[in-house]
Amino acid sequence: MRAVELDGKRESAFIFNNWYIAGTGGDITGEPLARRICDIPLVLFRTRSGAVAALEDRCAHRGMALSAGGKCLGETIQCPYHGLEFDTGGICVRIPGLERVSPDMRIRSFPVVEKDAVVWIWMGDAAGADPARIPSHPYHSDSSYVWSRGVLEVNANWEFLNDNLLDLTHVQYAHRNTIGGNPDEDARAQIKVQRNGRRVVLTRWLRDTACPPFHKQLYGFKGRIDRVQEVEFTPGYIFLHSSSMDVGDSVDEGWRRKGMHFYQMHAITPQTPTRTLYMFTMSRNFKTEDRALTEQIHALSMRTFEEDKAMLEVQQARCTEYPDIPLVATKHDTATAQARRIVREMMAEEVAGDQRSGSGVKDLPRPVGTAAVNNLRA
Amino acid sequence: MRAVELDGKRESAFIFNNWYIAGTGGDITGEPLARRICDIPLVLFRTRSGAVAALEDRCAHRGMALSAGGKCLGETIQCPYHGLEFDTGGICVRIPGLERVSPDMRIRSFPVVEKDAVVWIWMGDAAGADPARIPSHPYHSDSSYVWSRGVLEVNANWEFLNDNLLDLTHVQYAHRNTIGGNPDEDARAQIKVQRNGRRVVLTRWLRDTACPPFHKQLYGFKGRIDRVQEVEFTPGYIFLHSSSMDVGDSVDEGWRRKGMHFYQMHAITPQTPTRTLYMFTMSRNFKTEDRALTEQIHALSMRTFEEDKAMLEVQQARCTEYPDIPLVATKHDTATAQARRIVREMMAEEVAGDQRSGSGVKDLPRPVGTAAVNNLRA
Amino acid sequence: MRAVELDGKRESAFIFNNWYIAGTGGDITGEPLARRICDIPLVLFRTRSGAVAALEDRCAHRGMALSAGGKCLGETIQCPYHGLEFDTGGICVRIPGLERVSPDMRIRSFPVVEKDAVVWIWMGDAAGADPARIPSHPYHSDSSYVWSRGVLEVNANWEFLNDNLLDLTHVQYAHRNTIGGNPDEDARAQIKVQRNGRRVVLTRWLRDTACPPFHKQLYGFKGRIDRVQEVEFTPGYIFLHSSSMDVGDSVDEGWRRKGMHFYQMHAITPQTPTRTLYMFTMSRNFKTEDRALTEQIHALSMRTFEEDKAMLEVQQARCTEYPDIPLVATKHDTATAQARRIVREMMAEEVAGDQRSGSGVKDLPRPVGTAAVNNLRA
Repeated sequence: MRAVELDGKRESAFIFNNWYIAGTGGDITGEPLARRICDIPLVLFRTRSGAVAALEDRCAHRGMALSAGGKCLGETIQCPYHGLEFDTGGICVRIPGLERVSPDMRIRSFPVVEKDAVVWIWMGDAAGADPARIPSHPYHSDSSYVWSRGVLEVNANWEFLNDNLLDLTHVQYAHRNTIGGNPDEDARAQIKVQRNGRRVVLTRWLRDTACPPFHKQLYGFKGRIDRVQEVEFTPGYIFLHSSSMDVGDSVDEGWRRKGMHFYQMHAITPQTPTRTLYMFTMSRNFKTEDRALTEQIHALSMRTFEEDKAMLEVQQARCTEYPDIPLVATKHDTATAQARRIVREMMAEEVAGDQRSGSGVKDLPRPVGTAAVNNLRA
Repeated sequence: MRAVELDGKRESAFIFNNWYIAGTGGDITGEPLARRICDIPLVLFRTRSGAVAALEDRCAHRGMALSAGGKCLGETIQCPYHGLEFDTGGICVRIPGLERVSPDMRIRSFPVVEKDAVVWIWMGDAAGADPARIPSHPYHSDSSYVWSRGVLEVNANWEFLNDNLLDLTHVQYAHRNTIGGNPDEDARAQIKVQRNGRRVVLTRWLRDTACPPFHKQLYGFKGRIDRVQEVEFTPGYIFLHSSSMDVGDSVDEGWRRKGMHFYQMHAITPQTPTRTLYMFTMSRNFKTEDRALTEQIHALSMRTFEEDKAMLEVQQARCTEYPDIPLVATKHDTATAQARRIVREMMAEEVAGDQRSGSGVKDLPRPVGTAAVNNLRA
Repeated sequence: MRAVELDGKRESAFIFNNWYIAGTGGDITGEPLARRICDIPLVLFRTRSGAVAALEDRCAHRGMALSAGGKCLGETIQCPYHGLEFDTGGICVRIPGLERVSPDMRIRSFPVVEKDAVVWIWMGDAAGADPARIPSHPYHSDSSYVWSRGVLEVNANWEFLNDNLLDLTHVQYAHRNTIGGNPDEDARAQIKVQRNGRRVVLTRWLRDTACPPFHKQLYGFKGRIDRVQEVEFTPGYIFLHSSSMDVGDSVDEGWRRKGMHFYQMHAITPQTPTRTLYMFTMSRNFKTEDRALTEQIHALSMRTFEEDKAMLEVQQARCTEYPDIPLVATKHDTATAQARRIVREMMAEEVAGDQRSGSGVKDLPRPVGTAAVNNLRA
């Protein structure tokens, strides 16, 4: 056990030069949607032509929030106060009653990409927004899977949500009333942690273990099973692949193909330093037509993640009050520590970049229009 | 379009040396009323002899709020904690169980003037309280008019309320569900803005325009009409005179006498830097006996001003978050900019005066008794 | 009347090296109880063996609050997040799935003493926790008395609660709807104030006074009575002894034995600089079997102290807003001023001690284990 510091202090609260998940499925429509990401208030909307736009949610004229009663008019959004209209690049294209519009009348726009039913947004310098970095999540688009989605707002720093999913020993205690099982059996799990660039992959194996009743009900296993959980962290999101199969079927990467599979996407989108938009989707490869089962699994997931929410909010309150007391890590915190190191590195890199260019991202209230990189299709 | 800065920053949040409206009609009675003006907590009450008093709402003994259960006893107010009594000049005249009262036991009192059913209060140095500066509003006292009144608390800086009434192009957008009409017709309005000392007068003319159905119902107009709105701003209040008449009747100042008239008084009394007591009265010169109509007009006004309230509170939240981003003015902001200039000038003058005299108004917790100028009759 | 300053400013908000009341009667059980004292979040619990433990409410591992779903397991408490267990000395004795536990994995524990059905806690340096300083309150343990207890959270600094009980002239005004009586008669009271080390004793005599109807009903007095109130203040608590007896029975200390007696314990436990845990018990020596009377007296006490709570919260709000305006004392504030002087002296002594030892109590997040002095029996 090393005394790795996992404290709550940081130079910057966010990584701006990063792709975040702004919404899933049908979240974003022709009705303006207010959403705060990296403490920047945004208005998101879909234009008549189908493009998703993300603008600073603040009219350049009098500071009014465009989302608070604004209207989407074809390819523009209209301010609810004096009727000014802005295009998807943040340029004001009409002021009622006036013939000319000053080029100063504009607001910031943000690059967005829609892919696999997920809307991704880049919160930093638009020049660095590379859609090739956006991961695939094919289970949303493949008809051999069925998926559902849920949203929770968690009053805790986004890194506490990362930690939570990267140390699964909490399941037996925090979730004893939902998905928790046998603490002794769980303590046998073999754990492997690997860092790969900006990713951390944690794998947990439970080989030749008793099949939990719920798994038997779901998939009809007859005897003992092998179980694998693969948690893949990248700042902004976590993919969690959970599979169960007959004993022996897991060898030679068989666990990626055989048996029962859940593919979870956990969007961990920072809203403020102490509030996080937590959106999850849950895809599975079995009984895909069984709607009642989909609802049952969704309800259990919601109850489970609400347990996390309640706990993380208490944890945040304590760490807000005692920011200077270092936390003490255990051997189970290996993946957690790697993830925090990646975040620290990216934050330091970003701060260094801002210092080289002489200005921080937050200091640029209205950077040059980003329409060119807006609505990139990956 | 000039980039006039209308930002939210200011040296001082208030003008203290100014008359504000503390109440209208029967607001102030023998029951103590708590009211915060220019961030000073006040207790207002009417003594048995009929005078209105305004004291700092804070007992000199233990800091208790006199309004929180205090009692008016003839010409004094009694503290609800240990029963100390203060007169209308803020002097403690009795401590139960003690024979002598220290001259230190006193609190600040504020000059008040009651005129035309409006209670005016001076929040600055009592020596400068000149009742001659208080305007008349004869429609409250003249039986050829009928009036109603409403009160709203708006969680926004008072200057945002000024701006709102000084750029009426917002009516077509912010009030589309209440009093908004025809945006294209409205864009034709002829606008004139004049500064006159500490006043800004904005006049909007719509000549030979279609009569809105509501106006026809109210007054029985047969054909097209002339419409005028005159908005007269002074820091602390706005008078808005709105009149409609048959085409042609408006010439040669005829619009001041002929046709249908609404005289609105908008009291814009700063409570804190981000909260404003908004009191309005609405007087009219027609169907003065029709109580159902009075109620109908009052209800429509309330709905309209509640739309403003909701919007201004969002605007304030955005401007609180981004105090350093300058707003961009349009040609419609001429009156707004003039009003803000007057406020800035008065604030600068006041700060300079405080510096000359060596102390700010806020630094004087208990200035010498102001009983002499208290309850001035204008 | 001297202008003694009783202002709200202070160097330190609390006295840490002091015994406070953490609970009464059956408050503390095998179910973890969250309680904040001197702005330190605590978890209190009773182990299977009956000892009361008080730990910092914050797991050393990830900062989770132990009280938020933690479980008492025999002599330990288990963290609700990852299942770590801590003993009553704050030492982590088990981490699920790991064989060794680092000696760094520990949290602060606090000395506690249970005596006369009251749980006392020492919030400062454990070395100074002398149980001999804890007072007796035998009325809780003596069967010739009956007692009831109540709890209120008051959003005011604890010293305002001290002031309240040390100037009883407020009773006739603040409690006119409950226990207030005759203001003129009350003004006749003879008052004596004595300081004795860290104690202030205020005695109020009303000799040969009319018997209030409620007293007649309670005890059956036939004629006029003598009344005494003795208020004994020590930082952290106040004992209030109130007795009534036939005229003449009070001489020669007779008032301590004869007639009708109420012994009140007022625990005034600071939670934050502006929130106080106010727990009272009320013991009496007459009609001890009459449960309906016990409930009637309890209900009247609650109503009375809720009047204090409402008032003190307003007072706190005013004094928070105006921290720099000195309050003006009256002759009735003699005891109040003495009490505040004692508090100032103890705070100054504590700050000086911290400076001598080179570290403040608040700077020591995890001092050495205090198990040795924990659960002292007085």
